[in-house]
Amino acid sequence: MPNSVLTPQASDFPQWYQDILNKAELADNGPVRGTMVIRPYGYSLWEHVQAEIDARIKAAGAQNVYLPLFIPESYLRKEAEHVKGFSPELAVVTHAGGKQLEEPVVVRPTSETLFGEVMANWIQSYRDLPLLLNQWANVVRWELRPRMFLRTTEFLWQEGHTAHATQEDAAQYARKILHEVYQDFFNNVLALPVLIGRKTRKERFAGAANTMACEGMMRDGKALQMATSHELGQTFAKAFNIDFTDVAGKVQLAWTTSWGSSTRILGGLIMAHGDDNGLRIPPRLAPIQVVVLVVRDEQGVGDRARALISEMKAAGIRTQLDTDVSSSFGRRATNWELKGIPIRIELGPRDLAAGNATVVRRDTAAKSAIPLQGVVAAIARMLEEIQANLLAEATATQKKHLTDVKTIDQARDAAQEGFARLPWLVLGEAGEAELAQGGITVRCLQRPDGAISKSEDDPELLAIVAKAY
Amino acid sequence: MPNSVLTPQASDFPQWYQDILNKAELADNGPVRGTMVIRPYGYSLWEHVQAEIDARIKAAGAQNVYLPLFIPESYLRKEAEHVKGFSPELAVVTHAGGKQLEEPVVVRPTSETLFGEVMANWIQSYRDLPLLLNQWANVVRWELRPRMFLRTTEFLWQEGHTAHATQEDAAQYARKILHEVYQDFFNNVLALPVLIGRKTRKERFAGAANTMACEGMMRDGKALQMATSHELGQTFAKAFNIDFTDVAGKVQLAWTTSWGSSTRILGGLIMAHGDDNGLRIPPRLAPIQVVVLVVRDEQGVGDRARALISEMKAAGIRTQLDTDVSSSFGRRATNWELKGIPIRIELGPRDLAAGNATVVRRDTAAKSAIPLQGVVAAIARMLEEIQANLLAEATATQKKHLTDVKTIDQARDAAQEGFARLPWLVLGEAGEAELAQGGITVRCLQRPDGAISKSEDDPELLAIVAKAY
Repeated sequence: MPNSVLTPQASDFPQWYQDILNKAELADNGPVRGTMVIRPYGYSLWEHVQAEIDARIKAAGAQNVYLPLFIPESYLRKEAEHVKGFSPELAVVTHAGGKQLEEPVVVRPTSETLFGEVMANWIQSYRDLPLLLNQWANVVRWELRPRMFLRTTEFLWQEGHTAHATQEDAAQYARKILHEVYQDFFNNVLALPVLIGRKTRKERFAGAANTMACEGMMRDGKALQMATSHELGQTFAKAFNIDFTDVAGKVQLAWTTSWGSSTRILGGLIMAHGDDNGLRIPPRLAPIQVVVLVVRDEQGVGDRARALISEMKAAGIRTQLDTDVSSSFGRRATNWELKGIPIRIELGPRDLAAGNATVVRRDTAAKSAIPLQGVVAAIARMLEEIQANLLAEATATQKKHLTDVKTIDQARDAAQEGFARLPWLVLGEAGEAELAQGGITVRCLQRPDGAISKSEDDPELLAIVAKAY
Repeated sequence: MPNSVLTPQASDFPQWYQDILNKAELADNGPVRGTMVIRPYGYSLWEHVQAEIDARIKAAGAQNVYLPLFIPESYLRKEAEHVKGFSPELAVVTHAGGKQLEEPVVVRPTSETLFGEVMANWIQSYRDLPLLLNQWANVVRWELRPRMFLRTTEFLWQEGHTAHATQEDAAQYARKILHEVYQDFFNNVLALPVLIGRKTRKERFAGAANTMACEGMMRDGKALQMATSHELGQTFAKAFNIDFTDVAGKVQLAWTTSWGSSTRILGGLIMAHGDDNGLRIPPRLAPIQVVVLVVRDEQGVGDRARALISEMKAAGIRTQLDTDVSSSFGRRATNWELKGIPIRIELGPRDLAAGNATVVRRDTAAKSAIPLQGVVAAIARMLEEIQANLLAEATATQKKHLTDVKTIDQARDAAQEGFARLPWLVLGEAGEAELAQGGITVRCLQRPDGAISKSEDDPELLAIVAKAY
């Protein structure tokens, strides 16, 4: 039964999204168009996303650096193709220190040019390769149609940039990041079964030899690109003079990759799992996994609740105590539902007398009385069940709204409320252009078993097409 | 015996500082004046500083948020005193999205005005107080005389902003942050015995009722302000309309605080502990606590080294393996000395034959043979000894270069190579102005026992004066 705080998803999904940003206290608009104020709860979600992705990036051997926010305007002319992609989106500082600058500086839309420069400086010989770098930072791309978390003028992200001695090594590393960092995080933490594949020539990152992406399905059937990993060939190495002396003493151009993910992931989290009662945060990601609500602080309930919190903390469960008995119980329960806390434990004098805790799962709304004796172990098991159930639900949704079709017309129909899959040989670049007129894009090309193909000319490639955020 | 890679501290301290930035691979200059490229090793130091401070901020009950990089120029006119402090330092974006903006936007020099706005929006009643917020972000203040980590055009920092119902609560919280976040971090992690105290009216943050600071002594006898915590009274609440309905239903102005620390801490780390052989990182902060150098990979040395790494990892020790036997052993040892790794373990065929590891402490350069049997426990103890020893050394240095004096002339003399301490009643604002002509400033005012005084009119207050970074 919906708590009626939010517009129902079925009646107006975009309005539901706006409502939840506000009611779950995730983000406000900043005073400059397209910028966002990420509120404490929204930011704690980002901190957990960041920690999980960062641990995987480090496990993949990359090291974090910090490059400057400001880039001389001239740098963006080094790589013509690159500028074409970005210039209307740039924010330019023309005045600083109380006067006009001799050369304007650009607020980074990415740090690509600076990564190019430092890699060229830091790499001398094959012994310096591979050089595996990553950065967590804010970037700015002026947005005309901003949408919180999905497309904002300023956003937070990580961008990895690596240089390798061989094409094979670069190709392998770009796939390693796609699978071991992004896909693993989406599947095992975000509980989202992303589709992976190559981008078409049209959708590819400017200058990339191969762009690979993780595409998530939102609950309105639209696609959200959650992360990308690019093989850049030698294009960027050429533009930035990233070369090295090989074992034989010969100077060679390096092969580079880049890969990124951003606060957009929070948009995906909201739209892939949220329902008419609010967010549903997968337990492994949740800043608060269990909230304990003191129904009435009588007959030792408060003390028992605090003891329960301690027991759960000792078991490594992330908890929050709510003793705000001066607010109505219904309002408090609704608030924690909106925030998507995986488990709510309600503790009142009657529960205590019966030796039970009332436990409510956010994913299914199932309510049960669990003996306080042994409740911590039961909660730990339930958190794992919720994690698995959210993944199973999202997988079922994806399956239900992914239709295999044979023609472009069928694809157009199916993409009105989900993903359509058809042979790339049937669609082709002409079909891609035709679908684009209806706002439908090729999200990725993949092998029949869902794997990434080694070649873009693989005749078995299937195209996944959909409307996208 | 110095490794001769660096200019000795005694001959040219500023050059030693430049050398170490470069040789320990901490930071490079960015292409825009005053900006910095923080290299992987420098950034890993910052990540550990950040994690330690962030954990303490969260333990003090504050929540992280993210506010936009861009601030409308008009916002900075809201609080006149504030603008006076910053306007020559501002970087201004006048063009974005391919055209001139109707209202220029400023790149945040702090997020103070935005914190003021969100606090005013989020606080309705006494039940919303205290509101305890913090932000980790980059900020920009155009620097004419930049110096890596110490004074850069862009730097990374945290700024906390809190609102309280009463003056007492605000005052208490500002002290809590000073002691439990900053002083505790400096003493127990950075191994630096900071002097704490109030700032004089002249040195106080514009608009603050009370500024408190942690002042560290560098090895050249100069002071570095490592962190500050401000009681802002109701000045900012007035400027930003931060008010609340109290229990009786009456609208009241809130009392606010702010507090911050930055990448400047890395400058302090370098200059407080570094010696002629490089950095000396306190073990609790060190991203790499122990490096294992394979002297020659013969007779199973490599395997034994890898096993040792695993044993130490299992014991929670942060390690690094160096098997780069193609470089000279001396160069490798020097490199790890420059980076200040607390313990270096050298493992070669002879060590292995004797059943020993050769263990070298970075703080004292003491070298010893330790039986491989039980080496992990010995290393864990030694890390604690090194932590304690660095603190003891820094405490002794501070004591040696802190001179109690009776007159302004004596203070001026003593401050040529350290800190001077004299009664504030003797110095006074006239004396402060006199010393300022010689580049000597009052670092803080403290009670004879080193505590913070409740009142700035305390007749027992002692002034600590010094040259400062």
